[in-house]
Amino acid sequence: MIQFAPWKSAAAALALACLAAVSPPRGDVAAYAEDVDTILREAVARGRAYERLVDLCTTAPHRLSGSAGAAAAVEWARQEMIDIGLENVRLEPVTVPHWERGDVCLVRVAEPAGLVGDELTSITLGSSVATPEFGLTAEVIEVQSFEELAERRAEADGKIVFFNRPMDPESINTFAAYGGAVGQRSRGASEAAKAGAVAALIRSMSTRLDDVPHTGNMSYAVGVPKIPTAALSTVASERLSDMIEAGVPVKLHFRQNPVWHADKPSANVVGEIVGTTFPEEILVVGGHLDGWDVGQGAHDDGAGTCEAFEAARLLLQLGLRPKRTIRVVAFMNEENGLAGGRAYREQHAAEMPNHVFALESDSGGFRPRGFTTTAKGDAKAILDEIAKLLEPADCGLMLDGRGGADIGPMQLDGVLLAGLRPDSSRYFDVHHSESDTLATVNDREVNLAAGAMAALLYVIADLDERLPRR
Amino acid sequence: MIQFAPWKSAAAALALACLAAVSPPRGDVAAYAEDVDTILREAVARGRAYERLVDLCTTAPHRLSGSAGAAAAVEWARQEMIDIGLENVRLEPVTVPHWERGDVCLVRVAEPAGLVGDELTSITLGSSVATPEFGLTAEVIEVQSFEELAERRAEADGKIVFFNRPMDPESINTFAAYGGAVGQRSRGASEAAKAGAVAALIRSMSTRLDDVPHTGNMSYAVGVPKIPTAALSTVASERLSDMIEAGVPVKLHFRQNPVWHADKPSANVVGEIVGTTFPEEILVVGGHLDGWDVGQGAHDDGAGTCEAFEAARLLLQLGLRPKRTIRVVAFMNEENGLAGGRAYREQHAAEMPNHVFALESDSGGFRPRGFTTTAKGDAKAILDEIAKLLEPADCGLMLDGRGGADIGPMQLDGVLLAGLRPDSSRYFDVHHSESDTLATVNDREVNLAAGAMAALLYVIADLDERLPRR
Repeated sequence: MIQFAPWKSAAAALALACLAAVSPPRGDVAAYAEDVDTILREAVARGRAYERLVDLCTTAPHRLSGSAGAAAAVEWARQEMIDIGLENVRLEPVTVPHWERGDVCLVRVAEPAGLVGDELTSITLGSSVATPEFGLTAEVIEVQSFEELAERRAEADGKIVFFNRPMDPESINTFAAYGGAVGQRSRGASEAAKAGAVAALIRSMSTRLDDVPHTGNMSYAVGVPKIPTAALSTVASERLSDMIEAGVPVKLHFRQNPVWHADKPSANVVGEIVGTTFPEEILVVGGHLDGWDVGQGAHDDGAGTCEAFEAARLLLQLGLRPKRTIRVVAFMNEENGLAGGRAYREQHAAEMPNHVFALESDSGGFRPRGFTTTAKGDAKAILDEIAKLLEPADCGLMLDGRGGADIGPMQLDGVLLAGLRPDSSRYFDVHHSESDTLATVNDREVNLAAGAMAALLYVIADLDERLPRR
Repeated sequence: MIQFAPWKSAAAALALACLAAVSPPRGDVAAYAEDVDTILREAVARGRAYERLVDLCTTAPHRLSGSAGAAAAVEWARQEMIDIGLENVRLEPVTVPHWERGDVCLVRVAEPAGLVGDELTSITLGSSVATPEFGLTAEVIEVQSFEELAERRAEADGKIVFFNRPMDPESINTFAAYGGAVGQRSRGASEAAKAGAVAALIRSMSTRLDDVPHTGNMSYAVGVPKIPTAALSTVASERLSDMIEAGVPVKLHFRQNPVWHADKPSANVVGEIVGTTFPEEILVVGGHLDGWDVGQGAHDDGAGTCEAFEAARLLLQLGLRPKRTIRVVAFMNEENGLAGGRAYREQHAAEMPNHVFALESDSGGFRPRGFTTTAKGDAKAILDEIAKLLEPADCGLMLDGRGGADIGPMQLDGVLLAGLRPDSSRYFDVHHSESDTLATVNDREVNLAAGAMAALLYVIADLDERLPRR
């Protein structure tokens, strides 16, 4: 493999590292300006997040919990942490659900019969049950919302309900648009089943109009019949909608064969840079190692995982070992269960009071713009000061918001959380689809993201005073 | 062609347009917050910059001045302006240089002889002369700078000089990195010729390590022999450098056959939204229509041209006709002469005092972050206020800086200039190369850019008071 841009300056980096190896005690954030600059330059010029992502995505492109790919990814992560030079590298057990999509997802227009190109491109949603072995055939009704479904409840009985509300195209923040539409995917099947429907189809959660369907997880409400559900591509959704709008009853044939297996043992992968002065005080940085079984999970969340690893490697490379411990965690099972995030919190319950901060990158491997955080008050003020040091790199946002799904459970223990905030323009073009590949990732962007994460972590981990909880 | 995301809300847009058609007189920037929001939402949800770019890049992917492609692009732009509904659509004559690259650019390792894969991927630089018909063969010396060349002047005589200083990989702003390296391309041949060299090769101006060479313009110093020059891909540059470093003399065979023809007539393409109250006061918005003869010129500068057109279309679509005239200009010959920018200034000399503002987009079709501007003092303060309205869309930068090459000549007349500032992470991966294609452009990003430009232009063009010159 080509070495990415070493530009023959390894010697210069080493010299820098030696200079930086002994850092004086420091009480205020501004004193870290030079370190932050050094970290960012090292990241963008000689960072290895992208190189690592190429390795992960070729080693284990499909990493859904319980799969052989997920197991390969766990071993890859363990070895990678050792290679980076992390300490206390270990697997922490996680029991994960094991769902497989099967080999068929067919949505075909049965009536009007004889259409040219009668198949509507589709993909089974994660956790969905199968259709009957030879499929089901039923008339379809289209709705834009659960409210519309409630109003037209009588019509839905015995039918396939098609949820076709697009992500709001006017939202410049595509995560907000996703939030406004994804309920159709996660709850649509049970809402349709309550009205007597035999299946549910949804418009893919996507910002593109193309023929690539997007999967993602769904769950069934307790006490409601489990009906099969799949996503249509946005182009197929428009086509189906046009047919329905034409006024002739449309019947679809729907067949898919996903399988639920027994739960499986898996693991979070953990390694550390042990702090010099307060080793028992912990900052977590991570992403999730599992991913969907389409594309390569390059953005979701290969990038985030590799950025978290790289943030740690950059600090080791530069000799910037902080006062507190930085713990890198590659979480398992974010996509369809969050078992890893829950297990981490349970297994480290005794340590939770010593968890100073947790940072996750799980919003795509695009150009970083800063962070979102749950911190308020004094802690937020310190984070704002650190963010200022990242402004020259245009990574200086520190917005109120969430951390990330995997670290989310720790919020119950009062742990301050943050999430990397990359630009969101392109993320939902590729999210959970065959399009989520390395070809859509830029090396400078993921390496800069790793640098921004390393800088934020380093300053918090090295300040004389611990980041205050409220 | 697929219609991009109309989402069936044309009717809603029309209703909005009717509401907005009569705008009251307004003295302060804050009064425009709602208009700006409307423009941005319309742009990102229903903008046509990307659709237009697809059209341009398929109609005329190669648009170098004097070529058939450039002529096709001129006619395309004229028709597109008419279709958009611009007034006073016309061609303004520009005499352009006419250089063609020919069909051969071969750089082969002649000694050490018999290497497997002895060809070094290369591309002729714009404006270069040809080698002798059957090529030239000479030993090569590598230098990192003109200073090094001066020190080693005696060694260069009769040789090929290879300028191999990379764009600074530590620069997060890749334009700064480009600025620090591009002198090798633009002046390297003449500097080498002064030392008696027979040819000059340069490392491609690129942020990627790959085998795609990047072209771009060069010029010959007066009174210095004109020697042929080409760019090697960054991978080929590393390879050549390794060979030279090994200490055995390296001889290269270099052959290329570009041709200079007589100058040709061409045109800037111009259209207007005539202002309601001060029609004689003019804001220019543009990009350059010409592009290199490789790739599709999608980012450079198809995107900028299409964004400028779209900025105007958005205002017409929304019924936002401002007090002053907005003049859209598709400039010709930015890449190898700037004849269009110069001609525009000359032909409109009498109008220059009435030119309030000029805005160019020529930094790539990536995610917009705001603008750079030459404005100072009171004018800058007003622009800062407008930029604040763009912050919710994360387009709120208003930095001191340049406008753009095509509008640059107007600065001599005191015209205030601005340039769109997109994120620069990916631009020099593709710039001036076969990689500058539609596949690297995102529809939401160019449409948002058009929206940000439309918003900035509209407020300046509609304020009661003219933007003050110093």
